[in-house]
Amino acid sequence: MTHQEYSPGLQNVIAAVTRISYLDVEQEEIVVRGYNLIELAEHCTYLEVAYLLIYGTFPTREQVQDFESRLRSEAEIPESLYHTFLGFPKQMHVMDGLRTGISLLAGYEDPELLADPSREANITKGLRILARAPAIAANVYHAMNGEPFVHPHPDLNFTANFLYMIQGRAPDDQAVTIFDRMLVCYSEHELPNSTFAARVIASTLTDIYGAIVGAIASLKGPLHGGANEASLRMLLDILDRGGSEVAETYVLEKLARKERIMGFGHRVYMRKHDPRAVLLEQYIPQLIHRKPEGPELYAIYRKVAEVMAREKGIYPNTDYPIGLILYLLDVPIDLYTPIFLCARTAGLVAHVIEQHAHNRLYRPRVRYEGPRGLHPPAMDTT
Amino acid sequence: MTHQEYSPGLQNVIAAVTRISYLDVEQEEIVVRGYNLIELAEHCTYLEVAYLLIYGTFPTREQVQDFESRLRSEAEIPESLYHTFLGFPKQMHVMDGLRTGISLLAGYEDPELLADPSREANITKGLRILARAPAIAANVYHAMNGEPFVHPHPDLNFTANFLYMIQGRAPDDQAVTIFDRMLVCYSEHELPNSTFAARVIASTLTDIYGAIVGAIASLKGPLHGGANEASLRMLLDILDRGGSEVAETYVLEKLARKERIMGFGHRVYMRKHDPRAVLLEQYIPQLIHRKPEGPELYAIYRKVAEVMAREKGIYPNTDYPIGLILYLLDVPIDLYTPIFLCARTAGLVAHVIEQHAHNRLYRPRVRYEGPRGLHPPAMDTT
Repeated sequence: MTHQEYSPGLQNVIAAVTRISYLDVEQEEIVVRGYNLIELAEHCTYLEVAYLLIYGTFPTREQVQDFESRLRSEAEIPESLYHTFLGFPKQMHVMDGLRTGISLLAGYEDPELLADPSREANITKGLRILARAPAIAANVYHAMNGEPFVHPHPDLNFTANFLYMIQGRAPDDQAVTIFDRMLVCYSEHELPNSTFAARVIASTLTDIYGAIVGAIASLKGPLHGGANEASLRMLLDILDRGGSEVAETYVLEKLARKERIMGFGHRVYMRKHDPRAVLLEQYIPQLIHRKPEGPELYAIYRKVAEVMAREKGIYPNTDYPIGLILYLLDVPIDLYTPIFLCARTAGLVAHVIEQHAHNRLYRPRVRYEGPRGLHPPAMDTT
Repeated sequence: MTHQEYSPGLQNVIAAVTRISYLDVEQEEIVVRGYNLIELAEHCTYLEVAYLLIYGTFPTREQVQDFESRLRSEAEIPESLYHTFLGFPKQMHVMDGLRTGISLLAGYEDPELLADPSREANITKGLRILARAPAIAANVYHAMNGEPFVHPHPDLNFTANFLYMIQGRAPDDQAVTIFDRMLVCYSEHELPNSTFAARVIASTLTDIYGAIVGAIASLKGPLHGGANEASLRMLLDILDRGGSEVAETYVLEKLARKERIMGFGHRVYMRKHDPRAVLLEQYIPQLIHRKPEGPELYAIYRKVAEVMAREKGIYPNTDYPIGLILYLLDVPIDLYTPIFLCARTAGLVAHVIEQHAHNRLYRPRVRYEGPRGLHPPAMDTT
């Protein structure tokens, strides 16, 4: 089989066979292990969905309790990592700190277990990464901001503990519920760049830490996970410049300058709605009074979406409501993309397990458009 | 354009348009910026080839001198990195330490420069990574082995300094010459998994550090860069079990057990010769007397190659001679794959520059073979 056609960005190219998830654009459904992701977000917890992703079946009540206690017992990171965070340059991007922290965590695994690509070994390591990523993200942030570290709280569940480590105080129920749904929405999404990067890297049979480190590097990019942060910064910028009244002009001017409006459109959904955005938008009204500027930010949010739909015919992707939701929940902006990564770790672990179980090394070809037949100067003179 | 055919591992799929390099399997030529890589290895220095890769044109004498002094002035790493290496768990794989070190190095860049994907900014950052990777690789190794750090030597050129930092003593001319040719052979090779991973990651417009961190994760894999180390360990294993007389039986038994013989065959070359292996094999005879076991290892080397050609019709790839060459040059085995990465950094920098200059986000699709239409238990009971 040869493919001499070239599709830039591998658009529409099938790059993996999977039983994990599928974006059914025609039915407007995100299929995760056979379930509709939106139904999962409405009716299940993040840990149930993480279990489903990693093990392939929906957990019983007992299974999810075991899963929860296993993650809880693994949530603390080695003490020396905290020291390492203190040595990071203070300007370091939290995503770069998270990337460095997960990379370093690999060194704490037994070398034989680290190199083992079996399903069982990958689950052991994958659960450890899933359990520990929140403590790394939150505490890299604290180190960068000269704040005291917040160790995992043994009495809190995964999601409450994540918010607790970020904020240094126990979160209220509303915050935990919405944050948990947001985690589900971010948990898995077929083959976005970061998941593809993880599978490409895993296909050398390198370890799961390396594959996830590569995914973190990818997710940082402004065309990928960086979009939740960028879209919220835009809302704040509009608030600074006069609020919802200037939102339309702001967007039209940006469009006239051919600048990208982050948080809109998607390679796969194209001109259709992202079902995750449709779901999550519904939660914004109940959150707007958590901050004085909440109602005005929400007015800006709606105006920008209205102008984008009218002018470009494209709709919010999930990063757009999540940026605002995290802001209203008082989560520091530098943590938006790291939180995306922590949530996506469940999906990434599932993909690395699947890649290793049915492996074929990714090694595509190029179309060469450079010169030929040149000789180095040293050959002319001898 | 839709590609509903599926090629596992993207075999033969065109995944990038490039002016950097091309494997012309029919002509048995590795084309690098229009030059034949083998001619470059025979007639040029690694720094000339690194310049050619990154800037796109062969350097004048003055340009390569400037390039050399720039790399020399950037070769030292921040003092705090040495402290960080001392905190790494002593069992940590040197590739994992190198991955962590390059990831951490990103934190020392000015945040604006770090985020800038322009050609100029990428060259600035890329040269810094190229200059510093050897000090990181060598000193992570020293930290793991409780040896004193070896800082870059201001009077030595790039290649001599690399060997000096590894061995803690100034290398002889023969070692520098052969090591330099090995670096050229490893400098660039079209779109292997690590380069592909770097381009995929870079396409989110994330920074060049992240793209190279992903490539390090990939290169560690036993199906990729790990092969030079694995093939040398096999030669040593045969030496232990009786030497060249048992080599044929050893290989036949491995083949009968369907075990992989590392350092042979290649996705692209298939049943043809890897021109780099053909070149580098010629240097082995002049090196075998550098170690008492050298002649016997070389006899094993030839016997294994002979059996593989006869039994499987496949030939050594570049990892096979390089494993033995590095051993004869007294380079610690744990550094073989990190050295590969340091050499390949020149090519990786070129690819990230090219990707950012003509960017299209990599976002392929999947073929979903899982279930559909399932509903979470919580929905049944409400």
